[in-house]
Amino acid sequence: MKILVINSGSSSLKYQILEMENESCLVKGLVERIGEQESDIEQESEGKEYKNITKIKDHEEALKKAMELITDPEYGCLKELGEIDAVGHRVVHGGEEFFSSVLIDEEVIKAIEDNAELAPLHNPPNLMGIKAAKKLLPKVPQVAVFDTSFHHSMPEKAYMYGLPYELYQKYKIRRYGFHGTSHRYVSKKASEILKKDMKELKMITAHLGNGASLAAIDRGKVIDTSMGFTPLEGLIMGTRSGDIDPGIVLFLTRKGYSVDEADDLLNKRSGVYGLSEMSNDMRDIRKGIENGDKKAKLAYDVYVYRLAKYIGSYITVLKGLDALVFTAGVGENDEHVRMDVCNYLDFFGVKIDKEKNTLLNRKEGIISTSDSDVGILIVKTDEELMIAQDTKRIFKKFQNVAKKIEV
Amino acid sequence: MKILVINSGSSSLKYQILEMENESCLVKGLVERIGEQESDIEQESEGKEYKNITKIKDHEEALKKAMELITDPEYGCLKELGEIDAVGHRVVHGGEEFFSSVLIDEEVIKAIEDNAELAPLHNPPNLMGIKAAKKLLPKVPQVAVFDTSFHHSMPEKAYMYGLPYELYQKYKIRRYGFHGTSHRYVSKKASEILKKDMKELKMITAHLGNGASLAAIDRGKVIDTSMGFTPLEGLIMGTRSGDIDPGIVLFLTRKGYSVDEADDLLNKRSGVYGLSEMSNDMRDIRKGIENGDKKAKLAYDVYVYRLAKYIGSYITVLKGLDALVFTAGVGENDEHVRMDVCNYLDFFGVKIDKEKNTLLNRKEGIISTSDSDVGILIVKTDEELMIAQDTKRIFKKFQNVAKKIEV
Repeated sequence: MKILVINSGSSSLKYQILEMENESCLVKGLVERIGEQESDIEQESEGKEYKNITKIKDHEEALKKAMELITDPEYGCLKELGEIDAVGHRVVHGGEEFFSSVLIDEEVIKAIEDNAELAPLHNPPNLMGIKAAKKLLPKVPQVAVFDTSFHHSMPEKAYMYGLPYELYQKYKIRRYGFHGTSHRYVSKKASEILKKDMKELKMITAHLGNGASLAAIDRGKVIDTSMGFTPLEGLIMGTRSGDIDPGIVLFLTRKGYSVDEADDLLNKRSGVYGLSEMSNDMRDIRKGIENGDKKAKLAYDVYVYRLAKYIGSYITVLKGLDALVFTAGVGENDEHVRMDVCNYLDFFGVKIDKEKNTLLNRKEGIISTSDSDVGILIVKTDEELMIAQDTKRIFKKFQNVAKKIEV
Repeated sequence: MKILVINSGSSSLKYQILEMENESCLVKGLVERIGEQESDIEQESEGKEYKNITKIKDHEEALKKAMELITDPEYGCLKELGEIDAVGHRVVHGGEEFFSSVLIDEEVIKAIEDNAELAPLHNPPNLMGIKAAKKLLPKVPQVAVFDTSFHHSMPEKAYMYGLPYELYQKYKIRRYGFHGTSHRYVSKKASEILKKDMKELKMITAHLGNGASLAAIDRGKVIDTSMGFTPLEGLIMGTRSGDIDPGIVLFLTRKGYSVDEADDLLNKRSGVYGLSEMSNDMRDIRKGIENGDKKAKLAYDVYVYRLAKYIGSYITVLKGLDALVFTAGVGENDEHVRMDVCNYLDFFGVKIDKEKNTLLNRKEGIISTSDSDVGILIVKTDEELMIAQDTKRIFKKFQNVAKKIEV
């Protein structure tokens, strides 16, 4: 069974084909700068690399190009597109409607459109990808996998802000949380590595990439997460501020910042980048610290401190912790961040094994000492695989229903 | 030794005279609605109550009226104003300059003026009180006690936001914290009640009034606090939102809210009041819950949940906890809030004694069980007494210097 996974951004389209028998990736591609004069195309399939620059006018043309490359005799992996059994789409915002992945029909498309106001940068391009795929592969079932849905189990006390209730009714202002597909994937994987049932585990998953979020997972169900109404809230990120006094936004507005300027400032020029005045990349920050750069050190200290405080608040509401899972760019590859965060948590019996932490850097496994009260893990996230697994599950259900109708 | 304590707000002036020999309050008064057609005046001194409505045009006239009442043969407590040895003023924002209370001179007045931009609602009226007192009691030494100064010991990683560094340089945007005089007073008092040196204690003080904030105090020094650049950040409060996704402010602005409307919404119509759509007063919320009101229950649950998360994050950075102190309106008088917050913390060995919690409600003392790992206390806050104590201390220093100069 072969599944095409599509992640369609505002000016980019990422795709993969996964062979679900052994969950291997057959091909991986990326079209960037869609709609510009020169678009970049890259594909990699079993060691065969394709690269080109050409003009791609929209997402439909980008997907068409991807289809050609997937079936290209020299660079591709399929003989014909008919081999694709199903398509899985990443959709950022499922709003309050979607608490799990769904087969895409007209109603689902309508609902994703309705949630566009909540994710104006993400849902419209996600839809472009869906529409292009439906046009080019009209007979193949398509599945939507939402970034928000794993967080749907949060209780009201965790998702409601201290705002007038009518803002929730009128504009659906509440905490949604993002990176749900990653948190779900790594929590499942962590329970496999620990050889323990999810239903026995209190877990915190730390997705630390350029965007970063935490999830508090109580026996398989998210009870809290650090991103909120938008992906701006919570941890210090590569270029995003995370939590700030909301009074600062008012102050800046009074100082003459327009809403777009404030948005740009908080989302693109803040976080590690803004504090360090250097880079949003932890590898650069590390070099800066080694060279005695004080602002690089400050950015790092604030980043780790915020992380530790959040983890402490989640240990509180989980009433304990069995596993702490690090994933994504920084989580998988930065041994210093893992070390320093865990050092804050020694009071809770969190003991990181320094050697294992170094040895398993960029790999996967348990990095706590044998006498640690809490298992500490590195897990490589794989959102595409999670999307493909969901798509497979829903496809099978769909097949069964189709069979029953045939009978 | 008699000290006049002045707390001067935008349209009000509160005053007390304290006899420092036994730290008793001789007189307590309040002038409200200064500058309006009808101003209210109230004073209480040893059972003698005075009430009147008249026109008071400004803070100088208000203080003049207070002076008359203080020395009034029927309602007052002093024979003449000359009995006042020193004046202590509450000043909300000390910015980065003031890390302790100071004798007021021209330089100090200039610095308070310079910080007015950071506290536009508070510092200007505080200054009006200082200027009126200097005019009416020109020979009496005056002391400024800042709401921010106790928090000055916070490390950089706790006070810096994940914002461009230049916003700190240009606008002094950082965490300051407020309610410092109250946190300082109750932490000192708690160490006395516990009969332990401050230097041995890891403490969290919860000032829960209509405004609400927490301080994490490590052996006498604040290392973190929940209010930030403004008093809007942090806990859910009576009418303030506390922490929200900063993206929500941007969203509301795009929906047409002006900065003043957003300010009003977040500061005056949010928090317990906004969520419950009923009241900012926990007593009304309690009645609502008893009557089965779902939004009252929601507001309460969100309030307590946020508190528990913050306390957990502070236990993390304190690396343990010896004492948890409740103070101010809700903290002193609402046994349910104390009970439910502590129930969240049982994982940390926090054990509240249900009977003591009820018995000492509205009083002062230890309400944890004898086997609790953490002492839980109710302490009645007294900012005026703290201001008077500071004023006395600085006055004595000033006297010694004056004596040396004489010699």
